This record gives sequence, structure tokens and C-alpha cells, in this order.
Amino acid sequence: MKLSGYEAWLRYDKVKDDQLAAQYQAWTATIAAGSYKQASPIASAINELQLALPKLIGITPQVVIEPSVKQFLAIGVVGSSAYLDESLIGPMAALSHNEGYVLKTITKDEQSYLAIAGASEQAVLYGVFHLLRLMAQGESIDAISLSEQPKYNLRMINHWDNMDGSIERGYAGRSIFFNKNELLADSPRIVDYARLMASIGINGMTINNVNVHRPETFLITEKLLPQVAKFAAVFRSYGIKLFLCVNYAATIELGEVETADPLDARVKEWWKQKAKEVYAAIPDFGGFVVKADSENRPGPFTYGRDHADGANMLGEALKPFGGLVFWRCFVYNCHQDWRDRSTDRARAAYDHFKPLDGRFLDNVILQIKNGPMDFQVREPVSPLFGAMPNTNAVMEFQITQEYTGQQRHVCYLIPQWKEVLEFDTKVKGEGSTVKEIAAGNIHPYTHSGITAVTNIGDDANWTGHHLAQSNLYGYGRLLWNPDLSSEDIAAEWARLTFSESAVVQQMLVDFLMESWSIYESYTSPLGVGWMVTPHYHYGPDIDGYEYSKWGTYHFADHKGIGVNRTVASGTGYTSQYQPDIAAVYENLETCPDELLLFFHHVPYTHVLHSGKTVIQHIYDTHFQGVERVEYWISRWQQLEGEVDAERYNHILGRLQHQLENSKDWRDIINTYFYRKSGIADEQGRTIY
Amino acid sequence: MKLSGYEAWLRYDKVKDDQLAAQYQAWTATIAAGSYKQASPIASAINELQLALPKLIGITPQVVIEPSVKQFLAIGVVGSSAYLDESLIGPMAALSHNEGYVLKTITKDEQSYLAIAGASEQAVLYGVFHLLRLMAQGESIDAISLSEQPKYNLRMINHWDNMDGSIERGYAGRSIFFNKNELLADSPRIVDYARLMASIGINGMTINNVNVHRPETFLITEKLLPQVAKFAAVFRSYGIKLFLCVNYAATIELGEVETADPLDARVKEWWKQKAKEVYAAIPDFGGFVVKADSENRPGPFTYGRDHADGANMLGEALKPFGGLVFWRCFVYNCHQDWRDRSTDRARAAYDHFKPLDGRFLDNVILQIKNGPMDFQVREPVSPLFGAMPNTNAVMEFQITQEYTGQQRHVCYLIPQWKEVLEFDTKVKGEGSTVKEIAAGNIHPYTHSGITAVTNIGDDANWTGHHLAQSNLYGYGRLLWNPDLSSEDIAAEWARLTFSESAVVQQMLVDFLMESWSIYESYTSPLGVGWMVTPHYHYGPDIDGYEYSKWGTYHFADHKGIGVNRTVASGTGYTSQYQPDIAAVYENLETCPDELLLFFHHVPYTHVLHSGKTVIQHIYDTHFQGVERVEYWISRWQQLEGEVDAERYNHILGRLQHQLENSKDWRDIINTYFYRKSGIADEQGRTIY
Repeated sequence: MKLSGYEAWLRYDKVKDDQLAAQYQAWTATIAAGSYKQASPIASAINELQLALPKLIGITPQVVIEPSVKQFLAIGVVGSSAYLDESLIGPMAALSHNEGYVLKTITKDEQSYLAIAGASEQAVLYGVFHLLRLMAQGESIDAISLSEQPKYNLRMINHWDNMDGSIERGYAGRSIFFNKNELLADSPRIVDYARLMASIGINGMTINNVNVHRPETFLITEKLLPQVAKFAAVFRSYGIKLFLCVNYAATIELGEVETADPLDARVKEWWKQKAKEVYAAIPDFGGFVVKADSENRPGPFTYGRDHADGANMLGEALKPFGGLVFWRCFVYNCHQDWRDRSTDRARAAYDHFKPLDGRFLDNVILQIKNGPMDFQVREPVSPLFGAMPNTNAVMEFQITQEYTGQQRHVCYLIPQWKEVLEFDTKVKGEGSTVKEIAAGNIHPYTHSGITAVTNIGDDANWTGHHLAQSNLYGYGRLLWNPDLSSEDIAAEWARLTFSESAVVQQMLVDFLMESWSIYESYTSPLGVGWMVTPHYHYGPDIDGYEYSKWGTYHFADHKGIGVNRTVASGTGYTSQYQPDIAAVYENLETCPDELLLFFHHVPYTHVLHSGKTVIQHIYDTHFQGVERVEYWISRWQQLEGEVDAERYNHILGRLQHQLENSKDWRDIINTYFYRKSGIADEQGRTIY
Repeated sequence: MKLSGYEAWLRYDKVKDDQLAAQYQAWTATIAAGSYKQASPIASAINELQLALPKLIGITPQVVIEPSVKQFLAIGVVGSSAYLDESLIGPMAALSHNEGYVLKTITKDEQSYLAIAGASEQAVLYGVFHLLRLMAQGESIDAISLSEQPKYNLRMINHWDNMDGSIERGYAGRSIFFNKNELLADSPRIVDYARLMASIGINGMTINNVNVHRPETFLITEKLLPQVAKFAAVFRSYGIKLFLCVNYAATIELGEVETADPLDARVKEWWKQKAKEVYAAIPDFGGFVVKADSENRPGPFTYGRDHADGANMLGEALKPFGGLVFWRCFVYNCHQDWRDRSTDRARAAYDHFKPLDGRFLDNVILQIKNGPMDFQVREPVSPLFGAMPNTNAVMEFQITQEYTGQQRHVCYLIPQWKEVLEFDTKVKGEGSTVKEIAAGNIHPYTHSGITAVTNIGDDANWTGHHLAQSNLYGYGRLLWNPDLSSEDIAAEWARLTFSESAVVQQMLVDFLMESWSIYESYTSPLGVGWMVTPHYHYGPDIDGYEYSKWGTYHFADHKGIGVNRTVASGTGYTSQYQPDIAAVYENLETCPDELLLFFHHVPYTHVLHSGKTVIQHIYDTHFQGVERVEYWISRWQQLEGEVDAERYNHILGRLQHQLENSKDWRDIINTYFYRKSGIADEQGRTIY
């Protein structure tokens, strides 16, 4: 068994309990699969069983059309065989979602079988992964009866991979899709990656960066489409639709029309022809993701048009083929003058898009980052999400740890995303949570769901830090079922990925569960964000963005710190929320501590709800954060021998690096604020 | 006439005064040059006359061995012809220096001639450039009688060019020597560059970066030596010796000996053989420049040896061929912990090298940066210079404006260098100026002089900013005669490079003379240095290096700022100076304002000799600096039409950029200190 982490949660460790193994063997030695096409999700499901079962229980299953044995596994689309008849599977088969499936043990005519019946082929694949997950966790499958369907329709992954092989904000090596402007379409790694993604229910994927440079502009041309189609074929057999990020100004960049004006007839026509070409190559192509008029990318503004004009032009082109347009809302003035305190980057997405509600076609989806800034360790939920009842939307998370330790620090993000999902926007009264809005249950969206920038690269273990795999795993699991707890997801991941040892699992779960709070404690305090080395976004630089054009300031002076975003005396950002919520944030007394400096500029001596002053909170959390890293290193060290040496040492090395870097954060932040405020630590600890 | 600036100060603008032109024609229409070799300095001198005279006065001179005309120019080495007999030239011919020359009008046997008699061929070339300089400035040459010789023997230029074509700290395009790891030995630009350098008396040059990466390590191998020899041949004909920077660990890097231990017999032998090879290819090769044990470069420390061991090993190898070793003293701990205030980078060069005095071979020369830090806009003079009576030394300046505006800001550095040269170290009592130490007049050096990192690249005008040419010109002129005033050098340069217009010249001289002080006024205050964007060293980032490993701190807190380098309570750096000088710096009352924060940590309310508080000084200078840039832009705009449009607009564009950047400096520095100190500007100007 390789211990590089390459198999991730599809490790299929040998089942050590003989009784269980015998039970699994009995159910899975024979597989009734009916007839199925090659390179289909059913074929992938069978392939997965053939890969997994030898490892799990040492058997190679026999795949038959009509089983003569007494006990077997029956897989297929509901109703595709006598074993999977709706009446046998029962009411659970009334799945509302075509990605739902049933797992059920059934006895009929002296045969017992475990049915995996999907509402679609892809659903069957999900059901098989479910079964394998149960087996890998040592669950009994003797009397099983369950049905599952995903909460969200769109369960997307975005790659920020460039064709030169680099990955923007990638911390796990280079691209698995591209190198030196070539497409790695025949790489076996693509299949393994599709397996990992399908196993957690991902059903859509972009492979290239939202910042589409010149080489990637050619992905939608005849030169490269045949190669792109190869990726699409692999993904298709795992139920994943391929999407591409496109250059809004492709007409110009490719030298075919001298404008990119979305209302220009030639531009419209060009994109319609382009859509035809793309769909000729990839009949089930998903659509386009677009970053326009953002961070110096071209867009409709150049022509005095707005985002609706731009997005709809692409939407029209894709409409005949059922394609979608994801239009990113990460639009702000990135040439802001730090001297001007009236401009507020946090306001930008809402200010730009809210007035356009109702103007977008129904195959256009706004892609809205979870917070108003940019994937900081702590931000309020974007007020734009839910604010446009007549416009499709997806929430965008960031799995890659751009601002949360870059996969050198451990930061399990599922709790953060759950907080976002549970946030009640109140846009249609109580219960208008992000979770339900993204599911299309609050507004009548035709398309909705969740997307995220992923964290993988060509590192042996995919994610650089072994523990960063948990974020990718958890992301998929959460999109399937956002009611899973962070702990349960972590436990499931730890069991599948690491060890059946309860000690190892407990340590991993406990550590993961605390890791976000630890990272937050030694980095920027109380929701103010940033304070990172410009451009790299790793390591502390308190004033790194303070006098920049990026709109990312903390305004610390000798008396206090924070951004006044109140209506009363600040930028008025709070008014973008529903009145109840706005009131909470607007009021210094009710604003939650963890977001205090996001909403208010306060003296260092301001007393938090915790009873501490802001300055003492800064000192305390920064000392504690480092202490907690030290604690978790000691806990990890107790696992020596319990975890394979390769991963043990790799993780230990990263933890030690995290410790060193967390000390830099602690000492630089504490020193900065001590020097600035002149207020000493109550406990007299060392500040330089 | 091209107006790109390519000709720089060898523009040879047409002499507009007919009488003068006639005078020049009479003296130069015929040139008696004796016999001379091709590709020799004499050939270059004649070539220069043939290039210059058609432009200056519209004639093509006739070069003869024995002139039959009544009036002519006679050039050659003293005594090489009857015209250049020592008795005719007079006592001035008793030149102590083999690079000295005489210019003298002589009448003999009914012939009148202007003699340019050099102590060597190279000196003749210098004499010719002198004559051309006089003509280009419109001076009468009818009754001329002068002799010149350089103050310094080693008048070096260092390039930080990499073989990929990039230039470390280069702000004027890419390398003229290298591109894509090829040597551009046949580029015509090399000859023009050699002409420019010879015209200001440069006699030694390295072509590759002191940071010798893998490709440049091969410059001393048979693969590349033939190409290097081509550069050497061009330089030779202009009196310039070629030197190379070598990789101290070349034995290892080239895979020939597995160690670089300077006491290892195989290493010694390898370098001896290497020297033989190099001298076989380039018989007059100058020698090696070495950056060892510095900023992560390899060096003798790796083997428990010291700098003397390392330098002498190379010195021994070069000795048989008369080669020199320049050993850079830019050695410090570049992994310093900012938390540790006892370590002081400023101390490093002295602490490392002073104990080694007397241990270096006499063909080894220590290369000492002008200040103890790194070419800041303001630093004290390095206490190491002059502190080692028994060790050869050269002073290292930086012409390329790494920390002084990167050739986007105007910063005429001659006044800065003159301050350094006039600094009295008192190492052998009063009068032990840097100027005299570098000339070998204080300690009995066998080799000494001055070197500098140059500012040229392949930009059309060589230096990016047209006005940055003045630093290169002035550097050469200063090394020839450090008693020239900064104004006179600027005036000479402006006349040769720009225009005979007195208005233009006066504007340029006045602006250049104020430019260093302007740049200093809006950047880091009172000698504290740094505050620049890390790595790039352009634009303000007050804390950019504050919490770094580089040893470059200002320690600003809410009460005060500065580095305590006193013996009494600080790092003790002041003790590295002679007692008189140390006392001046040690004492807060006597320490000069402009270096106050280099030596002392003081409250913002400390009152300077100027009568202002430190904080008010910061505010005032930063407002004034920007105002002065505005003033000089208005002055420049008055020259529209007086200066050719190409250079007028180019310079105007750079000045406007300088203005914008100076406003960033002003506002960020002022805001930083206002936020930190809470002390308002007395004049109530806008601080953010």
C-alpha cells in the first residue's frame, strides 16, 4: 500500500474484522449490473467496485447480467432490471432528484441482494461510493435501507490552473491538467481525480483559471477543443460536467472581431457560432465561468454596458444547448485610493449587482463569494447572497487556503462554511438561510448551488498538506448534505483516509475542529482581515495592504483600529443587510466580537463582550494561538507509530513550520500593536 | 542627429561659432599619429577623432606619419616621435602616473601643433577625449598647456548582469552583454559602451553579476572563454581591463572537485590551472571579483576557513599573471531575528574583516561599500574603510539607483559620493580622508581605488532616465579628479549631453544639485533608511523590512524612532570609528541631524539642531519634497522647445511619475507617523 496520500479517502484499507469481511464478501462477490455502456457512470461504478473490493476484502467480484447465486449486489438505474423494480425498492424510490439513490437489502424469490438503485446512472455511481464508504468504515450492511439525494443541484469545483502549468493560489504543486501550454489529457491522474470528485458528489468542474490569459483563450478554439473533449470524456464517465472559464474579450484576443461589446451583433453572432463549435466537440458541455470587469480583466463596462448585458450575451449563445453562464460578482475598484475613506470595497458586489436583479437570463447564474471581501479567515456573509430574488446564484467558497495558511497551516474550513450556510439572511423572513437560498428553496431559482476554488495540484498527496484533504472531502460532503456536522465529516474523513485507530481519529477530529479558531487567533484579529504579505498572502505584514490600492485597510492608529462601516458614521455597508441584521452589526453593543473590527473603528481599550479590551484580546489570542499549535504538535507526536511513518513525518514537518510561522504572527502582531498603542500586556509576556 | 540619448555625452554637437570652428579645423585637419597598431588605444583615439570631427566641425581629418602642413595635431606616447619629445612638452611630461597626459600647443621649425602626449597609449586616448571635450564645450584651444593624471589607479565599473539577460537592480532594460545565456560579443553596442567608458577614464570592468549563478560559473571555462575574450579585446583597445565575478564554489558547481575548501590542495591547484586557462585566452585579464559568504552565497566559512584563506587562495592563483582579487566585504547575517536588538548589521563588515588586517596577499583588495548598510539615500561612511592599514581596499559606490528612485526619480549622486570622499576618518590623524585613503596616500596600499555598480542597460539612452546618465558620467570624472565640484561636473555633462543653451544647462545643473536632497526629503528621514517595498526597493513600505530577517529596522513606536547604535546603551557600533568621530556620533547633542536616527532612538518630540522636532521635521520635509518636485517640473516645462522634443517629453513623463510616487511617499510616511505618534502637523496640512 502506498502511503503517499495519493489514494486519499479512497484508500480502501483492508477490513480487519473477519466477520465483517465475510459479510461484505457475501453481498459483493457477485454483482448484477445489467447491461451498461463503456465509459459510463455505471461502468465507473463497477470499475470502482473492482478496484476497491480486492483491497477491502481480498475478492475480485464477478459481474453478471443475471445472477444465479443466492446473495449478490444489484446495481443500476431504478427500474432497469427486475431487481431494481420500483415496487421492490419501495417509496424511497420516489426520489425527487435525479441524482438520488437507494441502498436497500431485498429478499425476493429465495435470492437476497443489496440493491443500489439510482435515479440516474450518475446516482448509481454515488450509491456505490456510499456503499464503499460504509464498508471502509466497518459498518454492517446486512440490513440496510436508506435513500440519499443531494441538497444542491450545482456542486461545482473551480480550478485556477493556467496553461503554463502554474496554479494561481495553488499550494500543492503544479497543474494536473496543463503543462507548458499543453493539455495533459492522457494523464492517468485525471481519472483518479475524477474518481475522488465523484466519490464526494461533485458534478461540475472548470479546469482553467478565472483569470483567462492569452493561452487559455484558445481552449474554446478548434486547435484545443479536441484535447478539452478528452477531459470532458473522463469527467462524463464520472458524472461530472466540464465547464470552461472564458476570456470576456475573446473576440478581440483571438483577432476575430475588433470589439467585445455585448450588444454588437458581430460579437453576439461570434459567440453563438463559438457555442456551436464547443457543443459539437462536447455535447454535454456545462457552460462558461466568467470573471469580467474585475481586477483589470476586460468586461462590458468598456463599452458602456452592464453585467446583465455581458452575461446575457453569453447566456443567449449557450441557451440552445442547455449551457450555463456563471458570472462572478467579485467586482470592485482595485485602484482605490487609501486616502479616500468613503469608498468601501465591501459594498462593491452589492452595489454593482443588486440593481440588476431580474435582468439576467435564466441560464445565467451569479457566482457570489461567501464574504464581501475575499476569503478572509473571518468575514460577515455577503449581503448580496439572497438579495436578488429574480436572479440565479451560487455561493463561492475557497478550498485552497489562500488566506488561511496556504496548506502549510492546518485550517479545517468546514465549520466556517457551515456558519455561512446557517446564516439567516432574513431576506424572506426567518429561515432564509444561505443554506436554503443556495438550494433554491427561498427564491424560485432555476439554477443554484455552491462552487469553490479547489486546493489540489500535482503533489503526491494532491493537497500539499495531508490534512488539507479534509477540506476537499468535506466540501463535497457538505454540498451533498449540509446538515452533516463538521465533526462527523472530519471523523468520516479521518477514518477513510488515515486509520481505523480511534486514537488517531479522535486526535485528527479534535485538531481539525479547533484548527480554524487557532489560525484565526494568531492572525488578523476580530474580523479586520488582511495583514498579510502583499501578493503572497502568507505570513504577517500588518501594513502590507494598508496604503495600497486594494481597498483593504485596518486604519490602526495609536488610539484604535477597525473599519467604520456603519450607516451612522461610516461607509454605510451595514445597510446592505436586512434591517434586523443591519441593526445588530450597526450597533457596537450587539455587533459580535469576532466581527467587531470589520464593522467598527474602536479604541484599543474598548471592552468586548468577552470582558476583555481589544488590545488585551489581541495579546491573549496571539499567545494562545501559538500555545495551541504547540499543544497539537505534542498530541501528534503521541501518534508516532500509530500513523505510517511517511505521513507522520510529513505532517510533523508541516506542523513545525506552522509553529514557526505562528510565532512570527504572534510576535509581529503583538509588537506592532504594543508599539502603536503603548499599552502593555496585562500578563507581562514578552512583546518586542 | 539621433536624439535618443544613445550618444550620451559623446554627442559632438556641431560647433555653431564659425571662428571657433575654424580654429578647431586648423588644429585638427591633419593628425600626426606615427605608426600604431590596429585595435590599440591609439587606434581608438584616432577613430574617435574621425567620428567626432565631422560632427563637430564638418571635416574628416587626414592621418599622416610625417605632416607637411604648418598646423596639425600630434598624438602619441611621450617620446614616440620628434613632436612629442620630452623636452618640447616640458616638465609637465614628468607624469608620475602612466595614465597621465599632456595637451600643449607647440611651435617648432615653423610648424605649430597641438601635442597630445600620453605616458601610455591609453593616456593618449584620454588626452584625445579631453581635447574633444574642450571642443564640444566651445573652449579655445589656441594656447593650451595642461597636464592631467588620474587620482585613482583602479577606476572600476561592476555590472550585475546575468547571463539570461536580466540585470540585478537594473533599471534601464536588459543586459548589453548577455541574452538567453549567450554572450553578445559581436554587438556593436559593446564598442560604443567602451567609448563612453574610456571617455570618462574607466580602466577596469566586470561584466557579470557578483551573484554568480550556475550559467555564469561557466564564464571561466573553455566553453565560454573565447567569447569572453572578444569582450576583453574590445575593452583592451579602449584601455579597459576585463574582470570577471567568479563563483567561490566553482570547483563544486562545475563538478570538478567536491569541495571548495580554500586550504584543500586540490582546490588550490584547480584555481591555479583555471588562472592559466583564463590568461591563455586573455593575457591581460584583470582578475576576479568575489562575493563570498554573503546573502547565502557560498564561501570559506563553510569549511571553517576565514575570508583571508578564501581570498588568498584565489590571489595565489592569479599572482603569476599579475591578476587581482576583489573580495567584497558585504558580509552580514541575513537571517537575523528582528526580535534580537543586540545584533547590528551595521557592525558586520568591520567585525568580520578588521581582525584579518595584514593577512591578505598584496594582490587581494577588499571591496568596501560606502556605508555600513546598503547604498541607502543617507548612511554614515563605512568605518571599515581606512581601518585596515595593511590591507588593500577599494571603495564601492552604487551608480544604479537601487534605493534612490531606480532611475524613475532624479537623484544626482555625485554630491553624496563627494561627501563620502571628503569624510575624514582620522585613522592616521587629520586629513585621513576617504579620498586620500582610496588613492593609497594614507596607507601603503599596493592597489586601491574606487569601484561602482553601474546603471546601464540596453535602453536606447543606456540609463532609462536621460538624467541618470549624469551619475555615470560624474562617476568617471570624479574618479579621475575628486576635486572637481559636483556643479562643474553637472555643467560639463549638461553641456556635452544636452545643449549649448545656458538656460537649459542652468536648469539641469540646479535641478541635479538639489535632486539628492529632494529624494531624501520625501523618503526615509534622518538617516534611518529603508522603509521601501521589500525586494523591489521602490516606493514606500514603512514596516516593509521592520520585522524581517535582513537586519534593517527603524524601531518606531508611539513614542519615538531610531536605532540606538551608541556604546553607552546601544549596539556599540559607534566604537568602530576613531574616538573623535565616535564621540560626535555617540552624543545626541553633536550627532548630525541627517544621521540622527541612524545612531539614536529618540522621541518624536526631540528637537533637532534645526530647531524642529523630529516629527515636525518629518512632516515638513515630506511636504517640501513633493513641492520641490512640482517646482522642478514647472521649470522643466519652461524648456519646451529648448530641448529636443523626444528627450523633453521622455523626461517630463518620468518627472510626472516621480511626482506621483513622491506623493505616495509623503502621504504614507506622514500618515504612518501621525497615526503612530498622534502628534498633529503644526501647519495643519492634510495627513490621512
